Amino acid sequence: MKDNFQVALCQMKVVADKSENIARAISMIHEAAPNSDLVILPEMWNCPYQTSLFPEYAEERGNSPTLDAISKSAKDDGVYIVAGSIPEKQDGNIYNSCFIFNPQGEIIGTHRKVHLFDIDVPGEISFKESETLTAGNQITVVDTPLCKIGICICYDVRFPELLRLMVLEGAELIVVPGAFNLTTGPAHWKPLIQVRAVDNQVFMAAASPARDPDASYVAYGHSMVCDPWGTILKEARTGEQIIYATINREMIPKIRQELPLLLNRRSDIYQLKKK
Amino acid sequence: MKDNFQVALCQMKVVADKSENIARAISMIHEAAPNSDLVILPEMWNCPYQTSLFPEYAEERGNSPTLDAISKSAKDDGVYIVAGSIPEKQDGNIYNSCFIFNPQGEIIGTHRKVHLFDIDVPGEISFKESETLTAGNQITVVDTPLCKIGICICYDVRFPELLRLMVLEGAELIVVPGAFNLTTGPAHWKPLIQVRAVDNQVFMAAASPARDPDASYVAYGHSMVCDPWGTILKEARTGEQIIYATINREMIPKIRQELPLLLNRRSDIYQLKKK
Repeated sequence: MKDNFQVALCQMKVVADKSENIARAISMIHEAAPNSDLVILPEMWNCPYQTSLFPEYAEERGNSPTLDAISKSAKDDGVYIVAGSIPEKQDGNIYNSCFIFNPQGEIIGTHRKVHLFDIDVPGEISFKESETLTAGNQITVVDTPLCKIGICICYDVRFPELLRLMVLEGAELIVVPGAFNLTTGPAHWKPLIQVRAVDNQVFMAAASPARDPDASYVAYGHSMVCDPWGTILKEARTGEQIIYATINREMIPKIRQELPLLLNRRSDIYQLKKK
Repeated sequence: MKDNFQVALCQMKVVADKSENIARAISMIHEAAPNSDLVILPEMWNCPYQTSLFPEYAEERGNSPTLDAISKSAKDDGVYIVAGSIPEKQDGNIYNSCFIFNPQGEIIGTHRKVHLFDIDVPGEISFKESETLTAGNQITVVDTPLCKIGICICYDVRFPELLRLMVLEGAELIVVPGAFNLTTGPAHWKPLIQVRAVDNQVFMAAASPARDPDASYVAYGHSMVCDPWGTILKEARTGEQIIYATINREMIPKIRQELPLLLNRRSDIYQLKKK
């Protein structure tokens, strides 16, 4: 593994036209690739974030123009890609799924969002993913030559148990394709990303779509990369933008030695286990 | 239980003279009592935060001038008191212990810090509680007529498992007597308090000693109360100060209905249990 590597987060604007989204993703990956080892796309980047549209935009692995395009892009540009998420269909179910590609264009991991986002804040935001989506059932840590990467999709990041288990499995970077909104974003996005990094002493890279005030669901933006001390290394604004950051893996053992949080867990008092 | 109640956090200055600390605590409780149902003291409020001094300042339950004074104070002023923490000795061990009093002056709960604070950030801060202290082994949730109160002492708050278990046991308010320092305080104190509130949809009340630049361990200050949405209701500055806030218990079921985090936990994928 390398001591450090570069990540690029593509805060792309998502539109109604799927092929336009794919073209935009490829173009941003191509732009980012010369300066990065790993390129990250946001949640639901090929489809507007609307439950009613997920079935229509969903594609099946093995028969997916979206995944074929990203595979080619990974190979052409020679980068790892955490391809945000797209609606994936299989056996009549639709998932909010993240595919991870290596520079050979192969899929080396998949995460299906395990916590579906059902929110209802009267007068502010109402959204119910469970109307059309099925939840995944796996905790996802992908072993790559860069480092072990854990994947959370958006609402997943709200569950500390999930991230802790990823870290206990060795994740050093947790990637969060996520689309918080204008209610939850300003209130929770930044401290959540920071505290997950601080608690687990890992890097966090959270990629949002760009903010589109005309969309039915308005994403918060503010894609960010945070180090294991909780310092924000880079933060996007709200528009379409690529942000870059260095993942300095050597920082992880250093921080864990200075403040030995993982070592000091009281496994004799509480126990967290994968079921 | 009342729908809402008032808390007061006494950000008191801790000095070398134990009787002066006791007198100061009583005076602050007396000042706060007319406007509060529950008064909270900070971590190690009767003793400078120095491992070498803990044995000397430690008192035993049943033979404790400090606890006697607080008991009388609770009774005289007719308030609940979460008496921060003091060095407690028993059977040759010394603990960092929090005692909870009812308005009859009775001790209705005790928490012994379960995660001892051993930090070593070269050139910035080095501190090793385990040199003189023994860790407690219990998760503490105290049932009071105000609400169920969970107790974390300082470093305990860094372990999300502990707070989650308190909340699963019904805690609606988590009180954190805590003395972060000038390295960890600016970086972590506020987002940690906020995110524990947000993740668990409970109130958090965190009481620090006042900052004393001449102390061997300089506390951060910034005592704060945070609501279940993560909003800081009140935040102290660095000096000696009492802050007040209303714990509106009705907010808890409201927030949990709007954003059903506790309901959406995937206990079929991960399991967190008390051992």
